Amino acid sequence: MIRVLFSARPPVWAEYEVPLRRAFAAAGLDCDLSRDHAPADVNYIVFAPNGPVKDFSPYVHARLVMGLWAGVETIVGNATLTQPLARMVDDGLTRGMVEYVVGHAMRHHLGMDAHLSGQDGAWHNDVYPPLAKDRPVTVLGLGALGEACGLALAGLGFPVTGWSRSTKDIPGMRCLSGDDGLRTALTDAQIVVLLLPQTPATVDILNADRLSLLARGAFVINPGRGPLIDDTALLAALDSGQVGGATLDVFRIEPLPQDHPYWSHPRVTVTPHIASTTRADTAAEVIAANIARGEAGQPFLHLVDRDAGY
Amino acid sequence: MIRVLFSARPPVWAEYEVPLRRAFAAAGLDCDLSRDHAPADVNYIVFAPNGPVKDFSPYVHARLVMGLWAGVETIVGNATLTQPLARMVDDGLTRGMVEYVVGHAMRHHLGMDAHLSGQDGAWHNDVYPPLAKDRPVTVLGLGALGEACGLALAGLGFPVTGWSRSTKDIPGMRCLSGDDGLRTALTDAQIVVLLLPQTPATVDILNADRLSLLARGAFVINPGRGPLIDDTALLAALDSGQVGGATLDVFRIEPLPQDHPYWSHPRVTVTPHIASTTRADTAAEVIAANIARGEAGQPFLHLVDRDAGY
Repeated sequence: MIRVLFSARPPVWAEYEVPLRRAFAAAGLDCDLSRDHAPADVNYIVFAPNGPVKDFSPYVHARLVMGLWAGVETIVGNATLTQPLARMVDDGLTRGMVEYVVGHAMRHHLGMDAHLSGQDGAWHNDVYPPLAKDRPVTVLGLGALGEACGLALAGLGFPVTGWSRSTKDIPGMRCLSGDDGLRTALTDAQIVVLLLPQTPATVDILNADRLSLLARGAFVINPGRGPLIDDTALLAALDSGQVGGATLDVFRIEPLPQDHPYWSHPRVTVTPHIASTTRADTAAEVIAANIARGEAGQPFLHLVDRDAGY
Repeated sequence: MIRVLFSARPPVWAEYEVPLRRAFAAAGLDCDLSRDHAPADVNYIVFAPNGPVKDFSPYVHARLVMGLWAGVETIVGNATLTQPLARMVDDGLTRGMVEYVVGHAMRHHLGMDAHLSGQDGAWHNDVYPPLAKDRPVTVLGLGALGEACGLALAGLGFPVTGWSRSTKDIPGMRCLSGDDGLRTALTDAQIVVLLLPQTPATVDILNADRLSLLARGAFVINPGRGPLIDDTALLAALDSGQVGGATLDVFRIEPLPQDHPYWSHPRVTVTPHIASTTRADTAAEVIAANIARGEAGQPFLHLVDRDAGY
């Protein structure tokens, strides 16, 4: 009997209980899934922020803590967490993110807003946008989400540059790393997608200096984490025309306060942290697979590097 | 010396003259490109609607008439045209069409309009659209444009059904044909893309009966030809909620009259026949390649089947 503790708010339990039980059964795992095991009995913890467990120290037999979210910045600094930590790498989350990023990149690329707001009977059919092949896109962050988004955009014809802290090699896109690589990646980019983890090294990574490297009128899409952007610098770049528009899904404070200038800025689209979400059906299979690996003595998947912070 | 007549309005000449001369030189063709050759001297005709040539009978030595557009409905019935006719199959046109179709399909799929019009400070982050894998898309027409759009949508995860008059087999999508196949293709489709040629058999193909087959709230995207849709039926389906929205780029009368109900309908987006256009650089290469084939005694590419009308 494998004891699995589920620590998250009640609506999350309502969403995950049945898919998890189904995934455990499908994987042949004899799991006792509950929200209230005695701490010392627990073998695995499924965890979302704002759940009841804040102190992991009583869970002395827990072999793995598995987050339900891709981002781990709210837990990675928890000093009581000495057990291994796995992030969620869920195909449903990845696919949803690809769809959001492709949708908003195409919206900017096609100049769609002018058509949507211009249903006035005037027939202006003499302006065509450039083709995707002539619109360079840069994706900051090449984890599961950034790589999938970059490849999808490359598949549609965009020349894609990806940037990550450590060096990567992904066929189909130009991969850069390091500080010099970041400058090269941003220089003349017309669309920038932010999918970096939030760490001390990535906070305010898109600042005034780096915004000035972009092609004039570039578009910024941030479905990653709010603190990646220096908000004051972005608003100034929007007002100067250096940045032509931004679609922002994540913010330093969420919900974004009603009086924040992003809400009223004519060239900013705020979406309420809906770019993508972990999907219970596919995430439950990922959790079951990781427990099965642990029970079989295999190394866990998707482990967080606590020093790097992601 | 190969004499090539260019018959189109002056702005088209301004756009194509340099790319055509460049493409002829690159292909090693000794062409005399002009807008006013003596008819009996002409070997090839490059043609766009509304140009000076209406009567093709004096061009007794013309081996091929090459349209600059993908659609040939304005020329295919010209009784004076006895020479072979080639449509334009241009990679630039195809890529632009894929970008437009993917962009508007994703916009509908993501429910983007509600976000764009709802920048009011209210944070509604509890509704996620289905993933693309759960959103069936049907593409009517599997010519170069329909096939490329279907494959791009399939690459993003949508289950794609393609329908064409003659039977096709395209890996990555379900291909159907014939009248029964059309009913199957439309049944429960959530997004329908119209990329059929305009022929007597395709006029009003999307009529009230066929609109009723779609999933309730389906989206219609028409970048093909205006007469493919029974406009009265579509407006009724929009008003009843059977169709949730439509993005229309082509119309029976263009420019679309200012008082047409499509302009003011809250769930219709009119774009002014800008979905895609032939791009001079790539189209010039296609024209040069077809002339080179003719001079080498090889069969021409992209010939129109005059009986089928496309």
